Order: sequence, then structure tokens, then C-alpha cells
Amino acid sequence: MRLRNKPWAKEKLASYPQYVIDNPVEHKGNWNQLFGNDNPIHIEVGTGKGRFVTEMAKAHPDINYIGIEIYESVIVSALDRVVEAEIPNIKLLNQNAVNLRDFFEKGEVDRVYLNFSDPWPKVRHEKRRLTYKTFLKMYEDILVDDGEIHFKTDNRGLFEYSLRSFSEYGLLLTFVSLDLHKSDYEGNIMTEYEEKFSEMGHPIYRSEVRYQKK
Amino acid sequence: MRLRNKPWAKEKLASYPQYVIDNPVEHKGNWNQLFGNDNPIHIEVGTGKGRFVTEMAKAHPDINYIGIEIYESVIVSALDRVVEAEIPNIKLLNQNAVNLRDFFEKGEVDRVYLNFSDPWPKVRHEKRRLTYKTFLKMYEDILVDDGEIHFKTDNRGLFEYSLRSFSEYGLLLTFVSLDLHKSDYEGNIMTEYEEKFSEMGHPIYRSEVRYQKK
Repeated sequence: MRLRNKPWAKEKLASYPQYVIDNPVEHKGNWNQLFGNDNPIHIEVGTGKGRFVTEMAKAHPDINYIGIEIYESVIVSALDRVVEAEIPNIKLLNQNAVNLRDFFEKGEVDRVYLNFSDPWPKVRHEKRRLTYKTFLKMYEDILVDDGEIHFKTDNRGLFEYSLRSFSEYGLLLTFVSLDLHKSDYEGNIMTEYEEKFSEMGHPIYRSEVRYQKK
Repeated sequence: MRLRNKPWAKEKLASYPQYVIDNPVEHKGNWNQLFGNDNPIHIEVGTGKGRFVTEMAKAHPDINYIGIEIYESVIVSALDRVVEAEIPNIKLLNQNAVNLRDFFEKGEVDRVYLNFSDPWPKVRHEKRRLTYKTFLKMYEDILVDDGEIHFKTDNRGLFEYSLRSFSEYGLLLTFVSLDLHKSDYEGNIMTEYEEKFSEMGHPIYRSEVRYQKK
């Protein structure tokens, strides 16, 4: 993603503390209190400009969503969407996802979404891919026992890698589509990337995997 | 596959007993004796006109290949290839693959190839797909403990189904390509179907899975 320098982004994020949670560590174990209900929590790791997570939040008011994005110049666009639509069941974290364990207790999250994650195609960067085993372990450490990862990408190499990584980790593959937009899957919400790349004729790959009791 | 009636096929198959094994049940546990060596045995279930299995046999003289095909009017074309090239490390079985357990002892086979198997797209025909769980159990019952299935197809629905079926069965996914002919995979031998369908622009899907000790 091309990053524009937005010097005002940090200040804007700080001015909406009801949406952008500045101190997620302090809410560890108490997210339901912050949302004001006991609904399940789904997080999106790498939420980008936020179209997916905000549309999901509108479509599923009985789920609480947390969008996590490291780049302030990007997540500020997600904030615009949330502010405009006054979405109550969403929070944004301008944080590095490698620290998820500091933000959530084991069992506090029901589902992890990964959408069009950075493919890191070079072998020496394998450890940075969000479906590398250390990330799968991190998600396991915050998810409920039968928690799920829902993952989509247009990057063939990343999807192939991820299917192998999921299998090696012992995750159960419960859904897979190798051309999402030509499948009969319903309720798909497109990300900004997804719209662009599918218009270019790329197939979109999508999978759901579930953690199993060991 | 369109089947032509070839009334002479049965007789032709019977006239090459060194290649077409008429009584596989009698060789159960003794295939290495028939091949005259202790090389690993790889079988192809649904060998069709035999291009894959014969080319593999030529390329890998240290492996014994057995091609299994239910239609005599089809396997007779495979026999033509074997006869013409005088390939010593290949046998053909004009048999129904549901009877594999009658032909092989546990551990007698090292690898199963499935190439462009019938997709049986209707849900009510799921049990006929060669990657349905009862078939995965059957392969397990004849394979070595860490035996492998190598599977390729151009049928997206069958491949998606098979990835889920492999995962549910507990098989380890060790290789997957979602566009084989655009990948850097080397040594691919095309089947007759594969050549035709890839020329039409279909991506070819390929996977390798391995049985794991339970």
C-alpha cells in the first residue's frame, strides 16, 4: 500500500477516543465492558482503510469488531468511515499486531480476519507473513478454543503458503474457495484491494480454518 | 471421457499378460516379486489412456508403476504405449479401484496418484469422488505409514472439496499449487486431459498430502 504522509493523522486519531483505543493493554480481559455487552469479538489484523470491518460491523450489529492497523496514515481513513456512520460495535487500534497477546486474554476473541495481508514473497521474510506459525500460535493464545481464522487474498503464493502453514499447524480447513467471486458464497464484503484486484481479473482466494483441541 | 465401444479391447488386453495383470488378487503381497526387484510401488487410480503413468515410468526407472483403469476401451490405449516403448517397470490393471484392498497389502504401495479424476459435482454423488473419506481410508490401508497422495485436476470444485476432505481426514498438506503451469514446479508430466484443458486457459491445481501416524 502506498503510504501518504499525513502529519495530522495522529492528532485526529487521538480526538476520537470512543473509537480509537489508545491504551489497549488496559482493556485486556475487559473488552466486553468497553463495548457494553457480551457479544462475540472479531478482530481484523491489518484493517487498512477499514471498508471491510466497518461494513461487517454494520451488517452484523450483534458482533463486536476491532480493527488493528499499524499505519496511522491508513487507519485514519477507517476512522472517517466509523465516525460518519456512527457505528457503535467497532473499535480501532493503531497498533502493531505482533503485540496481540498484550491486548487480549486467551478466549477473549472469537474470530480473526486476515484480508489481503502483505505477501512477503521472499523466503527470508517468511516469518513476517501473518499466517506463519508464530502468528498462528499468537492467534491461538487469544482465541476461544474452537476459534477461527478467515483469510482472503489475491496473492497465489501467499495463499498456497498459508494452506500449507495451516495444515502443518493442525488447523482444520472448513471452507476454501479458489475463485470467490465466481463461487456461490454469499455475504462477501469486499475490501478496497479486493475490488481493485478482482476487477483486474485476479481470482480471489478465501479460506476458513478452525483451531482444534489438542 | 467419451467412451468408444472397442469389442476387440478385452482380447487385446488378454494377449499381453506381461503388462496387463488379469488376476491382481493373486499378487497381493508379492508385487515386488512380479516386478523382479524391491523398488517402491506407485499406483495411479484412474490411469485413463496412460500417458502420465508411462512417461513417469520412463523418467523414473527405479520406481515401479501400476496404472489402474476400469474402462477396457480406455486402458487399451495405455497398453499401446507400454508395448511400443517396452517399459519394464509398469503394470496395468483393468479393475475397479474400489477393490484396491484386495490387490495390495498394507504398506505395499508408497504413493497414490490421482489425475483429473471424475469430479462428481452433485452433492449426492460425493461418495464417488476419489478423495472422499472412504477412499482416503482405502489408500491408507494399502500405503506405507507415511504414504502420499499426489493429486491434480483442473476442476476447481473438486480441488476445493479435496483440500477440505484431506484436512478433515488429518492428512498433512506438503505441497499445493493453484496454477501449476505458471509455477516453478519441475518435472511435471502432463496427462492428455491436462494438455487439453490448460490450453483452454484453465489453471491446473496440484497438491501432495502425506499420511501421519495417529
